[in-house]
Amino acid sequence: MHSYRTHNCSALRKAQVGETVRLSGWIHRTRDHGGVLFVDLRDHFGITQIVADTDNPCFAELDRLRTESVITVTGEVLARSDETVNPNLPTGEIEVVAREVTVQSEAAELPMPVAGEAEYPEDIRLRYRFLDLRRDKMHANVMLRSAVITSLRKRMVEQGFTEFQTPILTASSPEGARDFLVPSRMHPGNFYALPQAPQMFKQMLMMSGFDRYFQIAPCFRDEDLRADRSLEFYQLDFEMSFVTQEDVFQALEPVLAGCFEEFSGDKTVTPSGEFPRIPYAEAMLKYGTDKPDLRNPLIISDVTSHFEKSGFGLFERIVGGGGCVRVIPAPNTNEKSRKFFDDMNNWARGEGFAGLGYVTRKGGEFGGPIAKNHGPERMEELYNELGLGPDDGLFFAAGKEKDAAKLAGAARTQIGEQLGLIEQGCFKFCWIVDFPMFEYDEDAKKIDFSHNPFSMPQGEMEALETVDPLEIKAWQYDIVCNGYELSSGAIRNHRPDIMYKAFEIAGYSREDVDREFSGMIEAFKLGAPPHGGSAPGIDRIVMLLAGEEAIREVIAFPMNQKGEDLMMGAPSQPDFKQLRELHVRVVEPPKQG
Amino acid sequence: MHSYRTHNCSALRKAQVGETVRLSGWIHRTRDHGGVLFVDLRDHFGITQIVADTDNPCFAELDRLRTESVITVTGEVLARSDETVNPNLPTGEIEVVAREVTVQSEAAELPMPVAGEAEYPEDIRLRYRFLDLRRDKMHANVMLRSAVITSLRKRMVEQGFTEFQTPILTASSPEGARDFLVPSRMHPGNFYALPQAPQMFKQMLMMSGFDRYFQIAPCFRDEDLRADRSLEFYQLDFEMSFVTQEDVFQALEPVLAGCFEEFSGDKTVTPSGEFPRIPYAEAMLKYGTDKPDLRNPLIISDVTSHFEKSGFGLFERIVGGGGCVRVIPAPNTNEKSRKFFDDMNNWARGEGFAGLGYVTRKGGEFGGPIAKNHGPERMEELYNELGLGPDDGLFFAAGKEKDAAKLAGAARTQIGEQLGLIEQGCFKFCWIVDFPMFEYDEDAKKIDFSHNPFSMPQGEMEALETVDPLEIKAWQYDIVCNGYELSSGAIRNHRPDIMYKAFEIAGYSREDVDREFSGMIEAFKLGAPPHGGSAPGIDRIVMLLAGEEAIREVIAFPMNQKGEDLMMGAPSQPDFKQLRELHVRVVEPPKQG
Repeated sequence: MHSYRTHNCSALRKAQVGETVRLSGWIHRTRDHGGVLFVDLRDHFGITQIVADTDNPCFAELDRLRTESVITVTGEVLARSDETVNPNLPTGEIEVVAREVTVQSEAAELPMPVAGEAEYPEDIRLRYRFLDLRRDKMHANVMLRSAVITSLRKRMVEQGFTEFQTPILTASSPEGARDFLVPSRMHPGNFYALPQAPQMFKQMLMMSGFDRYFQIAPCFRDEDLRADRSLEFYQLDFEMSFVTQEDVFQALEPVLAGCFEEFSGDKTVTPSGEFPRIPYAEAMLKYGTDKPDLRNPLIISDVTSHFEKSGFGLFERIVGGGGCVRVIPAPNTNEKSRKFFDDMNNWARGEGFAGLGYVTRKGGEFGGPIAKNHGPERMEELYNELGLGPDDGLFFAAGKEKDAAKLAGAARTQIGEQLGLIEQGCFKFCWIVDFPMFEYDEDAKKIDFSHNPFSMPQGEMEALETVDPLEIKAWQYDIVCNGYELSSGAIRNHRPDIMYKAFEIAGYSREDVDREFSGMIEAFKLGAPPHGGSAPGIDRIVMLLAGEEAIREVIAFPMNQKGEDLMMGAPSQPDFKQLRELHVRVVEPPKQG
Repeated sequence: MHSYRTHNCSALRKAQVGETVRLSGWIHRTRDHGGVLFVDLRDHFGITQIVADTDNPCFAELDRLRTESVITVTGEVLARSDETVNPNLPTGEIEVVAREVTVQSEAAELPMPVAGEAEYPEDIRLRYRFLDLRRDKMHANVMLRSAVITSLRKRMVEQGFTEFQTPILTASSPEGARDFLVPSRMHPGNFYALPQAPQMFKQMLMMSGFDRYFQIAPCFRDEDLRADRSLEFYQLDFEMSFVTQEDVFQALEPVLAGCFEEFSGDKTVTPSGEFPRIPYAEAMLKYGTDKPDLRNPLIISDVTSHFEKSGFGLFERIVGGGGCVRVIPAPNTNEKSRKFFDDMNNWARGEGFAGLGYVTRKGGEFGGPIAKNHGPERMEELYNELGLGPDDGLFFAAGKEKDAAKLAGAARTQIGEQLGLIEQGCFKFCWIVDFPMFEYDEDAKKIDFSHNPFSMPQGEMEALETVDPLEIKAWQYDIVCNGYELSSGAIRNHRPDIMYKAFEIAGYSREDVDREFSGMIEAFKLGAPPHGGSAPGIDRIVMLLAGEEAIREVIAFPMNQKGEDLMMGAPSQPDFKQLRELHVRVVEPPKQG
């Protein structure tokens, strides 16, 4: 018989009744039912009930041991009586009578319990992560993460991608965030950087002729932490050669839709091939954001033209000054009190906006100052145009276009949530496309890149030479799910001539480009295929599928919000000799006075 | 028609003759055969021949472009005439007549060619790695690496393992090599360390109850570089709970044997289930190393007892002083000249050994000073005992046991190679087991751990309490293939009481242990399963399968021997602001006088 187990703790069924078996695991719970001891023995696979009555020589040992001690139990499988069968447990039809108990590891008093659903402070959970991970939900989350990554890998391979590793000790890359640096022992005064993303390497792999690359890639950004961001994170990094934007979409949709379908349980998922493509300008208008949550049915409309001349002077002034007026419907709010509408206005002010105007409507009757000043006929006209009914309210966001869009977007979410309109039980994907290549930088009074300078402009060289730069779109796209941006991506600019021209428009000389991006430019001059890709965030995908609000809940050993690993005690002070070998010295920041 | 391609460059066959197709790729080679231009168009998948004669409007463009330019060609598929069919090329039955050529990327003059087998200096290859990777052999090596890793993953999952990611920004671990450190911006004066191996985390995963863990794990060691070692490397890191050493072997053998069988081509592989288990002491005796190359049929023997009294005074003195005499047969060397034997002796001296004695034999006649002094009868006796024949020579390694073993091991390899005895076309695996737990440290005059202090001693607590420490073996094992150690592994010591005791024997107090390994000890006190694992080196596995001598040949973007990434320009000098944010300052090493 094996030293530790003949079966795992989820394996035994009625078929094994009468057999002598050996199980190993953790004492999950012990109950003493009047002289009979029931021990739930837990391992990775499940739980099996061990029994011993007071006559049993194992009783005393089992009774003595603390929960979470690790034991090996040898005994006979018994069928449970009908009334004690536990239908919620795969092993619920049997129990094992202990004949021999070996203690593998005796647990001391626990800083936090494993069984049960009680919430514990995060610092205790992270300090004793190995206990926290024994808990049902965390164990399941980490297993889900593995399964999701395995599924993503399989689906990427099915799409013709090959996984490659790219260096982790590398050079600074122009991703925009702060690098982690690693002092080089062999090269005093020089530092490696950890990759913010393998962007340069994946483009180099395309230069190297590897048609379709992917990687479950660790990435590092030394930025302040939030619930959905950590110093170290993983992305499904991929890149493809000889492709258009549409090819990228067709490669990724089956991967994401397939993976979400596999793990979403009852929830519906936008089918592959049906992810809407929403132009950036349309998203900013209809959803007030480039990360629209399509589970929210509310659509923002622009009604600026209605308020060029209006009894409502405020809007007239805003429109006259070049601003705009956006509206968000609040359907079937005839029963809502005045307080509901005022609370929304207060919410908007609390968020730092100027305020959210509104019109109420009950049985066709308009209410509120905007309606009063604008007049019922013109309100009627507006409502007809928007397709709104006699019991629908309407919220107004007015101001400069950017501000109005932002307020309308936030209000759309708030109204949707308040009215319970957000569709539950679904994952709704969309692509945001046609991002502007350039934007006017009000502070610097010049044209600059609006997102990624390395994306290919739509229309390529001809567009750069003939079209108003602010009208040029880029082959750049975001993938969004339920209001979360999973990643940005682009068809890259692989042509040095087009890159020099694009940078020239943004005010950079050829020499600037050669100096800053010499490696890339040089490679592009030695035969570069057209290529593009993206990099959906894996932690965020798992977080969505696990229904968690923080990525720390889907990472086995995360840092806390201060960037500390409480279990391992990182970061820590190295000894002097280590620093000397690395040719660095610590400079304490000046004390705050 | 797709903008870039209807087919890849390995897809077209006779079946497509007459079709209009579009291909994209790199101009691999151009040949001008008297007014007809043949262009080998290459992509990731293969090569297709493009043709254009002087009347073809595409001729001039194709003729003008440098090799490695990227083009898109639209044209008709033609069958090649019988005499021009190329049976070595999957597309060798057809060619494509160019009707339209679009230049995607014009290549400048190349610093090194892609086509052809010429060798180029490593610094040029690494500086232009994206060109180097386009070459057949390198492209194949990197694809092999991906395939090997995919295969390893699949096989580990088949063995019930689940892949988890462990942190890369973490704490220093007691692995013995030098850490890479990463200054923390948020915690002045504190540093993260990059993992030398995820040892602590994988053991924590076992504490967390995840039965079988694996990871294709990036590891980092700041050590000087060699052909088979880089700063950043990957290992197939795994750990299992509730297992004995034999369970670990049974889990890993199908993974390694299966993977090697899949990629070894014609070479044979030790079948899973048949990896020999060789005790450390036996390996040191028979092979003079704990990394034996079993392709070498030569076996070392200890003949010390024959030389307690011998006419050969040197050996008698060595044996009298507690040393030993080991012999390595040199079969069928009757035709070898005296020079062969003397060269071996010179080789041994060149390697820093005292020298390698020898006995020659031709048709039963012994030769050389050892045979002369020892006498033919006693030589005959020795030969009979060793089962050697009338034409076999014999080499002698004598000295203190360790030295004699080492020399004998090196000589065994040298003799095997010189005599062409190393079996080619096979991968021979073995496990080395029963490593001693402790050894006597001659310098410190005390008992110390001989390998890994965290391995479980065989016999556990009872052995520590009752057996001479130098006789205690550990549940520790190495996996060796063709003389390369792929990894060490062990059943871990998961019992604080046994760990305190083992450290006590090596001269460390309970307080020492608690201070140095607090995280681990604390976790072991809260319910730890028996567990063990190993971590075969992936770069080395791929190197063996690719038949390469350096791991840089099987890594897409390796550093050079000085730890520099010549393509990306790493490491480099950060700007002052970056260092200030990280609270460090560079201290230049003192100038050498």
